[in-house]
Amino acid sequence: MNTPSPAAAERTVTVAVADLDRFCRDVLRAAGGDPATVDAVARAIMHGSRLGVDSHGVRLLDHYVTVLTGGRVNPRPDMAVVDETGAVASLDADHGHGALATYTAMNHAMGLARRFGIGAVAIRNSSHFGPAGAFALAAAEAGLIGLVMCNSDSFVRLHDGAAPFHGTNPIACAVPVAEGRPWLLDMATSTIPYNRMLLFRSLGRPLPAGAASGADGIDTQDAEQAAMLAPVGGTFGFKGAGLAGLIEILSAGLSGMRLSFDILPMGGPDFRTPREMGAFVLAIQPGAFVEPAMFHDAVRRYRDALRQSRPRSDAVVLAPGDREWAEADRRQGSGVPIDPTTEQAFERLARDLAVAPPTWRRGP
Amino acid sequence: MNTPSPAAAERTVTVAVADLDRFCRDVLRAAGGDPATVDAVARAIMHGSRLGVDSHGVRLLDHYVTVLTGGRVNPRPDMAVVDETGAVASLDADHGHGALATYTAMNHAMGLARRFGIGAVAIRNSSHFGPAGAFALAAAEAGLIGLVMCNSDSFVRLHDGAAPFHGTNPIACAVPVAEGRPWLLDMATSTIPYNRMLLFRSLGRPLPAGAASGADGIDTQDAEQAAMLAPVGGTFGFKGAGLAGLIEILSAGLSGMRLSFDILPMGGPDFRTPREMGAFVLAIQPGAFVEPAMFHDAVRRYRDALRQSRPRSDAVVLAPGDREWAEADRRQGSGVPIDPTTEQAFERLARDLAVAPPTWRRGP
Repeated sequence: MNTPSPAAAERTVTVAVADLDRFCRDVLRAAGGDPATVDAVARAIMHGSRLGVDSHGVRLLDHYVTVLTGGRVNPRPDMAVVDETGAVASLDADHGHGALATYTAMNHAMGLARRFGIGAVAIRNSSHFGPAGAFALAAAEAGLIGLVMCNSDSFVRLHDGAAPFHGTNPIACAVPVAEGRPWLLDMATSTIPYNRMLLFRSLGRPLPAGAASGADGIDTQDAEQAAMLAPVGGTFGFKGAGLAGLIEILSAGLSGMRLSFDILPMGGPDFRTPREMGAFVLAIQPGAFVEPAMFHDAVRRYRDALRQSRPRSDAVVLAPGDREWAEADRRQGSGVPIDPTTEQAFERLARDLAVAPPTWRRGP
Repeated sequence: MNTPSPAAAERTVTVAVADLDRFCRDVLRAAGGDPATVDAVARAIMHGSRLGVDSHGVRLLDHYVTVLTGGRVNPRPDMAVVDETGAVASLDADHGHGALATYTAMNHAMGLARRFGIGAVAIRNSSHFGPAGAFALAAAEAGLIGLVMCNSDSFVRLHDGAAPFHGTNPIACAVPVAEGRPWLLDMATSTIPYNRMLLFRSLGRPLPAGAASGADGIDTQDAEQAAMLAPVGGTFGFKGAGLAGLIEILSAGLSGMRLSFDILPMGGPDFRTPREMGAFVLAIQPGAFVEPAMFHDAVRRYRDALRQSRPRSDAVVLAPGDREWAEADRRQGSGVPIDPTTEQAFERLARDLAVAPPTWRRGP
């Protein structure tokens, strides 16, 4: 469940889901990605664009081409599990794309969870992985609970802080639901994700109140003036900052990778040096704890009761994922809206890489 | 790191740490608790009172006597690991005290983590456990990362909701720090814990803005009018509610225990019926992922950098646990402040159970 995308109001340009997926794959292949990289990156960013998580959807394609061709991200990595002790392992991602690393790590964690009831994998030498929810969902689609987290370059102040410290350090969790789509939580521990702030900038729209601060740590709604994001929680922002810290320790501490304030900025100017990012994934097999039927009954009852909980006047209560799955259904029919900056980038990528551009549908 | 205790300003009555611990043990023993129950409950609530988490400190003693003698909580439970698959297990707490159940489960999870790198235990037939941080800390004191969560009776509305739905569903995490005290996060996924709201009521003080709602789901600062708490996050309260849901699914779903809205109210009037609460604990052995020295270096660097991060004017940035450890040092010298309601309860307990009362120190 995310804050409504600021693009919603202005959207007039869309691309059909299948055509957008085809375009992403063509571009990633032309940028030198091996088949596993092409598949993982397209799957991850199409997850974002299908479900309405536009901050982590196909708008990242242009950036990923820059880093795959620039040297920062290895387009043909040799990823390997380098260490395994019981139910935990470490994956060396060989500086490949974070999406491939995280799908690979989750797949390994799922195998461990099938044997040991739980499995955890720390990822070394990874890079920006896109939408965390995509990898958690992979576990839920196989009947397991998936948890995914990573740290990222500093852009979030501490509670009562006036300097960027943590990354937006997302956490995602997906839970299988016997009748229906998975329960899916995918959240930055900042108020909004950094990529959504960039989207607000691109669209020239004001930020939500309390989401970001100027260089003095004081709140601003001007996306151009925003120097850092706030930890989620407002008055209780020490909770958001504390969760970001937990994610930092598991992602960077257990992988031996860089702390957020040591990670090279995502936006460059250096697109050649690997960023040495870590991440952490966990898979849990519910049937190792209770009868699967009992678990599924509890989750379904929980979700149904949540949807029926009394709302404040004029409001609607939603379970995590409800908004996203509804948006996925809508976009399967009407296509994926593309913001102006991304549209221009796609035209340029098509030209530069000699790839057929997507078929633009221009609405009223 | 918690919101400052509202008791701080009025405190005039204190009890020395050792004497308070002695009094708790005497009372719990007189209430019928077996030695393991006495030790676990006293250790847990003294953790709260030593570290300044007064909402989950010795003010709970009176309530625990009520439930241990009333039949809700079994004072002489026969707890047993009833199921173990690889790195996960289920503990049946035999309707005993949640503090004993959770220390026992964490201890078992730690053994699993030493063998498998990670260990998880779901707790069945448990009860209110007190301060979550106490059990996470037990792992960190043994060199492991500990995570603890549980659901509880409904008192928190959903984002845009107007009815109690989740419990305050706390999560705690403790991380060992080679030189210094553990990094310690202990937070409700509501704005404030329910027990802190009761403390505000007891003291007749206004609640923090945005912390609670009246029966219509609209914010109120009047502790007497508060009908429910808000999920942490304010504008982004769907994140707090989503985290509460994750905790609900792991605590109740994996244990087959009651969802928050099915749990009998903590405050009675029924103190006879076991509440069938679940909880979930996780232990992680850092050395199964990376060289211990590398992990400890990362955690220490992280904590030191956090403490040095630039604050907003007049503010101070703190690592999770910093405030609590400083308060523990202070209270070791000056004693534990006791609120008026708790003081009266202690006098009554001493009388009714024929136990020597604590020695009250009355300050200026």
